[in-house]
Amino acid sequence: MPSLLIIAHGSRRAASNDEVRALADAVRAQPGQTYDHVEAAFLELAEPGIPDGLAALAEKGVTEIVAFPYFLAAGTHVAQDIPDAIAEFGARYPQVGVRLTPHLGASIALPTAILDISGLDAAG
Amino acid sequence: MPSLLIIAHGSRRAASNDEVRALADAVRAQPGQTYDHVEAAFLELAEPGIPDGLAALAEKGVTEIVAFPYFLAAGTHVAQDIPDAIAEFGARYPQVGVRLTPHLGASIALPTAILDISGLDAAG
Repeated sequence: MPSLLIIAHGSRRAASNDEVRALADAVRAQPGQTYDHVEAAFLELAEPGIPDGLAALAEKGVTEIVAFPYFLAAGTHVAQDIPDAIAEFGARYPQVGVRLTPHLGASIALPTAILDISGLDAAG
Repeated sequence: MPSLLIIAHGSRRAASNDEVRALADAVRAQPGQTYDHVEAAFLELAEPGIPDGLAALAEKGVTEIVAFPYFLAAGTHVAQDIPDAIAEFGARYPQVGVRLTPHLGASIALPTAILDISGLDAAG
């Protein structure tokens, strides 16, 4: 099975980076989830960076990675910086496949998720 | 039924604000969704602001609003600025109930949503 790398922007505020790491932990712990590994990486300002985060998975023997940009808005980071970082990794680990999904804000599943989220949390 | 206000940060980049408005349109158009109205508002840099977005719903006769902070990280905006803006509205429209949900990044439904999103989009 593939592994999942959640790619966040990264923040000078350590608590924000920890929120992303906790999110990766929560995704990994979901009952029935099928990714071999679920990790977080950061475009900037926090560790690991994207190439290192991908490489850490490769060093665990992972050969297929789904890279999920945890970004709300399209922009240079999503359109260029993240693909560039993945390409940097690809040059070092050509045997590992990386499938880049749309960013969170453009996901076709987000509208349904927002209905679930707003309903669940409002009721909870 | 309540109405849903999706509260985003707002951006100097018009396309980012339009992404949020398109997201509200997509949520509104979801089959089976039960909110009477689904709209977007912005903390800053774009219109409508939060009090005006809430007031526009109130002027349509809405008496119950779910306010969903479309933010990834906790911070001053989520902890203080958004509640302050809702309180500003509440002072003008005390008959309208506003229920503030956790922000997107803290939603208990987000880990499942990310699994759905990464699987759907990777397969799509």
